[in-house]
Amino acid sequence: MKRTAFFISDGTGITAEALGRSLLAQFEGIQFELITKPYINTPEKAEALVERINQTGEKDGARPLLIDTIVDQSIRAIISRSEAMNIDVFSTFLAPLEEELNTHSSYSVGKTHALTKAKEDVYKARIDSVHYALDNDDGARTHHYDTADIILIGVSRCGKTPTCIYMALQFGIRAANYPITEDDLLDTELPKALRPYRHKIFGLTIEPERLASIRNERRANSTYASLKQCQKEVEEVENLYRRHRIDFIDSTHYSIEEISTRIMAQAGIERRFSPR
Amino acid sequence: MKRTAFFISDGTGITAEALGRSLLAQFEGIQFELITKPYINTPEKAEALVERINQTGEKDGARPLLIDTIVDQSIRAIISRSEAMNIDVFSTFLAPLEEELNTHSSYSVGKTHALTKAKEDVYKARIDSVHYALDNDDGARTHHYDTADIILIGVSRCGKTPTCIYMALQFGIRAANYPITEDDLLDTELPKALRPYRHKIFGLTIEPERLASIRNERRANSTYASLKQCQKEVEEVENLYRRHRIDFIDSTHYSIEEISTRIMAQAGIERRFSPR
Repeated sequence: MKRTAFFISDGTGITAEALGRSLLAQFEGIQFELITKPYINTPEKAEALVERINQTGEKDGARPLLIDTIVDQSIRAIISRSEAMNIDVFSTFLAPLEEELNTHSSYSVGKTHALTKAKEDVYKARIDSVHYALDNDDGARTHHYDTADIILIGVSRCGKTPTCIYMALQFGIRAANYPITEDDLLDTELPKALRPYRHKIFGLTIEPERLASIRNERRANSTYASLKQCQKEVEEVENLYRRHRIDFIDSTHYSIEEISTRIMAQAGIERRFSPR
Repeated sequence: MKRTAFFISDGTGITAEALGRSLLAQFEGIQFELITKPYINTPEKAEALVERINQTGEKDGARPLLIDTIVDQSIRAIISRSEAMNIDVFSTFLAPLEEELNTHSSYSVGKTHALTKAKEDVYKARIDSVHYALDNDDGARTHHYDTADIILIGVSRCGKTPTCIYMALQFGIRAANYPITEDDLLDTELPKALRPYRHKIFGLTIEPERLASIRNERRANSTYASLKQCQKEVEEVENLYRRHRIDFIDSTHYSIEEISTRIMAQAGIERRFSPR
């Protein structure tokens, strides 16, 4: 039987969705349909959503699950009238937090994501990091490595670019990346541009089959995408990592989030938005 | 008084951090120090963390807050012994969900982020979207606009690139962007490359003061960064949006998450990872 889950928010819905997915992932046997509804911030939108929820429940033959991070009390009251199982995140946790902190919380809409003066600096740091990642992508420039937090290396299409961009966007990390080419693999030394920054280098590797499949989408049936070529490059790049004692991680079975956070944990890089 | 909050997970910590920040943002009067601890996945790491939590509490003179999304029961048990206020997300919500779904949940570590066969397609779609955003950044190429989900337009440095990349990474949206130059603003027509895609275009605008400040970081004291120039460009680009009835949004007071999700809501674009 299919169950429908709604992730509902009067803000972006990103927290409700992240939490909802984590919770539902614990129920492997059940087929879920997931629907995210951000910006439910007027009584009219809330009423319309209640109607949709109720119709969905009738169609499914089982009441939908709601995971909501709605801050506004009046909107929450409307949503709670639907025929559904309601996981109301803020109601559940704000009351004990208010007691612990001995104060009232401000039930204002979308507080985390509205830009306050203090957050503008964080915003600028993120934008700056994203532009840094783009400017220092794929070995395009190497003379700014002195200001990098990390330099990712690996063979073509092993996942360097998305990982760098994710670290920049999510954590404000200045992440450059450098592609290890066949020429680099012939040399027993590290590529020249990297040598002064040995301590900032982190390696990525990937299973050859997966690499071939990714490369084939870009250049089908090329030598570049052949399994043989991929096997050779991966073997040699891993040898290079071992020879120079460079920490590395296999990206094959991980999501971008996981690759990024694992690299940061392993390399001891702190999130810039979570000052210690 | 300062309070320290720990966001703890045996996975990436992204859910715990998103949820924790949303909750604590409701308490404006209190100064929090935020610490994220991902990959607490062995008893040794958990014990060490308990010690750190307890020391922090003594230093602060108030017990720390823990927001955790730890799945592993034995790790959770260790963490719960610390002298802290513990918001245990999975304990709180999994029990009622199990009852509702009439089944047991699988208490396996990091379920959401491990790549299963089915998720590989999502992974590939995200990577594909990120590369699409990079290849179609800043008007670099315009002959792939037929496969775009959205084309963001706006003056230089108003936030187009990070927004496109965020939409690609987070939601798998194919987002191109096109910079509106002074030449484009002299014309009463839309730039030629955009005309066939009128229905996919979305505008960004920004307060001139903010734009000048951002541009100044790039090219200090240039005409390009002058307040006068920024005022002129912003006024003219908003006129262009109105003349052609192009939906637009002011990015000045929003985070990248909020700009992205607002654009998608306003333009009616569905998240690719949350099929309806």
